Amino acid sequence: MAIDINCDLGEYNGENRDMGWTEQLMKYISSCNIACGFHAGDPTTLAETIQLAIKYKVVVGAHPSYPDIKNFGRTSMDLPTEELQATMVYQISALKGMAEFYETSLTHVKAHGALYHDLNERKDYAEAYFEVIKSIDPNLVVYGPPGDIFEHQAAKSGISFIPEGFADRVYINAHKLQSRSVKGAVIIDPEKAFEQVKTMVYERKVPCKNGKTRPLEVKTICVHGDNPAAIMILQRIRKLLYGN
Amino acid sequence: MAIDINCDLGEYNGENRDMGWTEQLMKYISSCNIACGFHAGDPTTLAETIQLAIKYKVVVGAHPSYPDIKNFGRTSMDLPTEELQATMVYQISALKGMAEFYETSLTHVKAHGALYHDLNERKDYAEAYFEVIKSIDPNLVVYGPPGDIFEHQAAKSGISFIPEGFADRVYINAHKLQSRSVKGAVIIDPEKAFEQVKTMVYERKVPCKNGKTRPLEVKTICVHGDNPAAIMILQRIRKLLYGN
Amino acid sequence: MAIDINCDLGEYNGENRDMGWTEQLMKYISSCNIACGFHAGDPTTLAETIQLAIKYKVVVGAHPSYPDIKNFGRTSMDLPTEELQATMVYQISALKGMAEFYETSLTHVKAHGALYHDLNERKDYAEAYFEVIKSIDPNLVVYGPPGDIFEHQAAKSGISFIPEGFADRVYINAHKLQSRSVKGAVIIDPEKAFEQVKTMVYERKVPCKNGKTRPLEVKTICVHGDNPAAIMILQRIRKLLYGN
Amino acid sequence: MAIDINCDLGEYNGENRDMGWTEQLMKYISSCNIACGFHAGDPTTLAETIQLAIKYKVVVGAHPSYPDIKNFGRTSMDLPTEELQATMVYQISALKGMAEFYETSLTHVKAHGALYHDLNERKDYAEAYFEVIKSIDPNLVVYGPPGDIFEHQAAKSGISFIPEGFADRVYINAHKLQSRSVKGAVIIDPEKAFEQVKTMVYERKVPCKNGKTRPLEVKTICVHGDNPAAIMILQRIRKLLYGN
Repeated sequence: MAIDINCDLGEYNGENRDMGWTEQLMKYISSCNIACGFHAGDPTTLAETIQLAIKYKVVVGAHPSYPDIKNFGRTSMDLPTEELQATMVYQISALKGMAEFYETSLTHVKAHGALYHDLNERKDYAEAYFEVIKSIDPNLVVYGPPGDIFEHQAAKSGISFIPEGFADRVYINAHKLQSRSVKGAVIIDPEKAFEQVKTMVYERKVPCKNGKTRPLEVKTICVHGDNPAAIMILQRIRKLLYGN
Repeated sequence: MAIDINCDLGEYNGENRDMGWTEQLMKYISSCNIACGFHAGDPTTLAETIQLAIKYKVVVGAHPSYPDIKNFGRTSMDLPTEELQATMVYQISALKGMAEFYETSLTHVKAHGALYHDLNERKDYAEAYFEVIKSIDPNLVVYGPPGDIFEHQAAKSGISFIPEGFADRVYINAHKLQSRSVKGAVIIDPEKAFEQVKTMVYERKVPCKNGKTRPLEVKTICVHGDNPAAIMILQRIRKLLYGN
Repeated sequence: MAIDINCDLGEYNGENRDMGWTEQLMKYISSCNIACGFHAGDPTTLAETIQLAIKYKVVVGAHPSYPDIKNFGRTSMDLPTEELQATMVYQISALKGMAEFYETSLTHVKAHGALYHDLNERKDYAEAYFEVIKSIDPNLVVYGPPGDIFEHQAAKSGISFIPEGFADRVYINAHKLQSRSVKGAVIIDPEKAFEQVKTMVYERKVPCKNGKTRPLEVKTICVHGDNPAAIMILQRIRKLLYGN
Repeated sequence: MAIDINCDLGEYNGENRDMGWTEQLMKYISSCNIACGFHAGDPTTLAETIQLAIKYKVVVGAHPSYPDIKNFGRTSMDLPTEELQATMVYQISALKGMAEFYETSLTHVKAHGALYHDLNERKDYAEAYFEVIKSIDPNLVVYGPPGDIFEHQAAKSGISFIPEGFADRVYINAHKLQSRSVKGAVIIDPEKAFEQVKTMVYERKVPCKNGKTRPLEVKTICVHGDNPAAIMILQRIRKLLYGN
């Protein structure tokens, strides 16, 4: 099974928790990235998400964010690297501890939102980030954007890197997604998402907004859990990649 | 020798952080209980507190709370034990991970505020709490109120229990502190705090509000870091207990 | 939390004084036993050792010996108990006065060398010793070998007793160390010392020379300051017991 | 009883101890200065001397020295003041502790030998010395040479000063004794010693070597315990001063 399918989960707080939806998503994915409380995710949501992941044999990763619940972690922040590190250590350790309490383990880390992209633009951030991960557990794997600063710093740190492609996001080029502030940035047509994944996996290219394709080699495909079409997209992709 | 002096620290968020005061406190204590973000404490505050603890050879504990920043964790909450556990696992794991990142380790856990007292009144809470601690690390030690439900459940769980006395809180009886809502509940007269500790340590009794003493055997003395007289109290107590 | 780490210090005279080594040791220990001049230790060495102890928050104890500089206090002496008492009063008082001059206080007493062992074999010596300590300050604590005459007489005297285990000495059985005259009596392999301490603290047993373990409950661990591997042993033990 | 008679005692080590002689001296004196081990005096000698002092209602002082057993403390030493202080604290504290163990207390301090004289010549030494005494117990009294640096520094420190005159030493002038290296420096003729004391006490002058007298006001008279004529001198002086 060369290609992994991942979903960002655990992004609820208290009352709005919808574990029924989470459980549906779990049926189609092979790994999940669980929010750590800093863009979303209270401990009870995290605990229930981890327990569902175990039930559906989905591997558990941490999905740390800038400390920014108000903007759901979608705004860039300029932090001293010491602060970035403290924030990362806290979130990843919390999720790792929870995974272990419920008798699974943490396999990977994937940054959330604005941080995900900033780590591919700021070498200082990427260095600080990998130092944290290596210190917590050098066997952790990172998911991230391929072919640029993030991948390069991962290689320097010795941390295993899993290049990620998005099934449901419009690409400007191989290294840049269409901003969420632009209408249509999130693909909700399952057919279109399916075609995008097919191109990425079988042609090692990504279709871009301008209609061309760019080389892109990915090993994990992300479908956003908050995409209303996520289940339909996942059903089709899973069938494509795993046959079931 | 046998008596530890502890302080609840890390209870800042961002701008109001005062590490100078924290550093002063560190000079007199042997252990600290660091907030885990749920009544106070952002990751940067926690990181800086841990680094000061290492500098001053102060052992590091977690100080988890009900999830209640608004009331500083001082209001009781009625949670399903699963939620209490998730909240505890998250907080203790976060702090444990941070301690390890900065190259120390977590030695103990002390609950904060209303939770501290509720754990001594609700057997279901205490059982859930010790299950979490045992699962995270059975060598962790717990600080708590002696002679009642909390101590009993600690013994049943096999977790080492350190009975705690307060230098700067008025006791109603051996098991009950004067509520913080009553004026004078926190002792700010260093001489009075000193006498209370002396009675606790050398006579194994606690002076109560009614002027009588009650038997109480403690192995750690808490001085609250947010008591404005904390440094003066600590100086006198440290001299009494350690000579320096 | 409950386990103290102690070192015998101040064992220099004049020119051979090495306060750099002493300072290194201070970083890892929680209490020290300072020579009182009768097996080693001139007043300047004692003064500098006390001042370093204060700097590193290490509590100060007296380490009195038979009056025998020539043999470093390692030869048994048969003294009238009045002479033993005079010798003890002199040494402990000298160190207590020095501790107080430098603004700390004396917390405990640990006998040195042959006297340490003789106090566990001669009831008359132990009685005389505890009478001295009680007279000087009944709040002083004694460190010594557990489970035998010394502990029994401590209990009779009302003086608090802290059972001691050695990290770096080979045990014949729970009450007897391998004589220093036998090669290998002092453990210089940090890994072996670490394992011995781990067994003592976490299994409440001591590994003996014949390969078996014997029950032994200790509350303080001694590492000898003159062991060339002391720093390496202390680093590992401190990490084990305190995390920093 | 305005005039005190003092003797330097406890100046034995082990085998040469002569407590019979010591006991004879005790019958005539009102205070004694007991060696502290650094020019003479092992703990057993000190203990027995203290016990005789108690028996004969003689008040107990400490008689600290340069650390110089070889020269009986009679050679000047140039020490850093920190070393001088450490040496003083050690000796005075040891004797204070012994006095208290045998249920008396330390009332005064008198320096021995070369140190006695150097304290009257070196302001830095005198300052360091009074700082030690004040720290150990501000109610301690010092014996020393009147009218010069020593008395001046005592006054500055606030320590009570008792001016001392010698019954059995030849004076060059009011501030200087004939060196012991000169034959005849120690007066062994009881009649001559008696006359010297009489002049000092009743005329407030001291007879000097050149035949003249110099003003000198003393409140304690010293007779050396190692003067072979000490008993005879003391008998006459006591009769003179106390009538018995």
